[in-house]
Amino acid sequence: MRDFSQDHRWLSINTATVRAQWKLDAIIDECARRGITAISPWRDQVAAVGLDRIAAQVRSTGMKLSGYCRGGMFPASTPEGRRLALDDNRRAVDEAKTLDAACLVLVVGGLPGALQGKAEHKDIAAARNDVRDGIAATLEYARQVGMPLAIEPLHPMYAGDRACVNTMEQALDLCDQLDPQRSGALGVAVDVYHVWWDPKLEEQIRRAGRERLLAFHVCDWLLPTRDLLNDRGMMGDGVIDIPRIRGWVEQAGFAGYSEVEIFSSETWWKRDGGEVLDTCIARHRSAV
Amino acid sequence: MRDFSQDHRWLSINTATVRAQWKLDAIIDECARRGITAISPWRDQVAAVGLDRIAAQVRSTGMKLSGYCRGGMFPASTPEGRRLALDDNRRAVDEAKTLDAACLVLVVGGLPGALQGKAEHKDIAAARNDVRDGIAATLEYARQVGMPLAIEPLHPMYAGDRACVNTMEQALDLCDQLDPQRSGALGVAVDVYHVWWDPKLEEQIRRAGRERLLAFHVCDWLLPTRDLLNDRGMMGDGVIDIPRIRGWVEQAGFAGYSEVEIFSSETWWKRDGGEVLDTCIARHRSAV
Repeated sequence: MRDFSQDHRWLSINTATVRAQWKLDAIIDECARRGITAISPWRDQVAAVGLDRIAAQVRSTGMKLSGYCRGGMFPASTPEGRRLALDDNRRAVDEAKTLDAACLVLVVGGLPGALQGKAEHKDIAAARNDVRDGIAATLEYARQVGMPLAIEPLHPMYAGDRACVNTMEQALDLCDQLDPQRSGALGVAVDVYHVWWDPKLEEQIRRAGRERLLAFHVCDWLLPTRDLLNDRGMMGDGVIDIPRIRGWVEQAGFAGYSEVEIFSSETWWKRDGGEVLDTCIARHRSAV
Repeated sequence: MRDFSQDHRWLSINTATVRAQWKLDAIIDECARRGITAISPWRDQVAAVGLDRIAAQVRSTGMKLSGYCRGGMFPASTPEGRRLALDDNRRAVDEAKTLDAACLVLVVGGLPGALQGKAEHKDIAAARNDVRDGIAATLEYARQVGMPLAIEPLHPMYAGDRACVNTMEQALDLCDQLDPQRSGALGVAVDVYHVWWDPKLEEQIRRAGRERLLAFHVCDWLLPTRDLLNDRGMMGDGVIDIPRIRGWVEQAGFAGYSEVEIFSSETWWKRDGGEVLDTCIARHRSAV
């Protein structure tokens, strides 16, 4: 297992972590100033500044992208809805390619319409079929341009509205079905927040192996958790044994960045952005 | 699949559903007045009135107990803590027996100390070992007195503080380990709120079979869910396909009560208790 205590060369900042404080161009500069060498930006943050400008800034600063957030949201209740989702995923692949991201992260979607306020049906099995078909179609294009897709299993508390892929086992079953040759074109993003509770986690990380482990995200599970979406903790402030999980991931062959992704409306989004980044660096060394 | 639309003979009320409105003796009377023939009470509600008085009332009204809530909370960081938990579970078994409950429901516990405000360690595997040992010891006693134990897998969002058994598969693995003969002494309580998201749910319900399916709980998953603990919905108000899951459970051999268990600090606990019970009856017929 790599020693993170001496430096932060393997730290990546998911830019949602400081989305409340700065626009993306400022985030990149603030990261670069601190010797942070990788980020994972969100599409809306890129769009707010402009793809070309961000691409130029990424090149000029030498910043790496541990991932690009995000594709997915495949389920729909009409053929037209499914087609629109595929178009949008194709654009996400192109953007990821323009930015030379290591992978496009897929938050696959839940029941159609649920995130917009009203689920159009309750058939989660049907939503899962939409997800399988949507990934299959997107993968065909992503292979051509050489952009790996990372399915992110989300915590089961998001099954209804954000992602109906909720365990590593389920995500890896999809990988086996759609990329049986383990080509590297399809894998998973392991976020400790979503999977730490899973009694099969160690076994499924081993099953994933190097070819399928495309990203590793960290934050912490707070007790109590006061909000389902925006109450993630800084590493070390919660109950996840992060080093143990990182050990499993590295044992299985993962050697990439450890990406900090914290949504925190009441704590970290209210702090000074520089303080947040400095804390990420310190905790990366001491608690990851 | 049984037809629930014509009457409510298979309705049970988990008495937490109206805990804010009435004490347990009043709840029993209000249920009996409405032709509700089964309840599942909590230990603190029983204690507040007195075990003997409740036992007498249960007998005089002919009320059945679809379960008794709850045993469990096994993990501890000291041998003394584990011993105290076993003593408490033995008392819970005795109370369940006094009330002639169909089973004692086990909410197995999470990281020791977490529910009291501070987790004493982050080793969820160790907590799971405590749970296995605690169930094994409690089962030995429960077999002697003839009280079935129902492990309730809780939603993964409670893994840290309430229950580190979080899927049907994990609960059934414990059953296989501790009661390989499928004697009926150990099984599971299937609560749709906790398990509806699970891609392996249908398969694991089939695996459980009649001998292991000891209780069936219903409520609904609201979108959005505003609180991790106390924002459960009335059946029909959320996104769980309850009839589908009931179909699987009955197909596997379950023929007991459908128990309504709703924790709802901002909605149902603020309504008139009679209105809540009447709504449970109506929704039992239309949405379960």
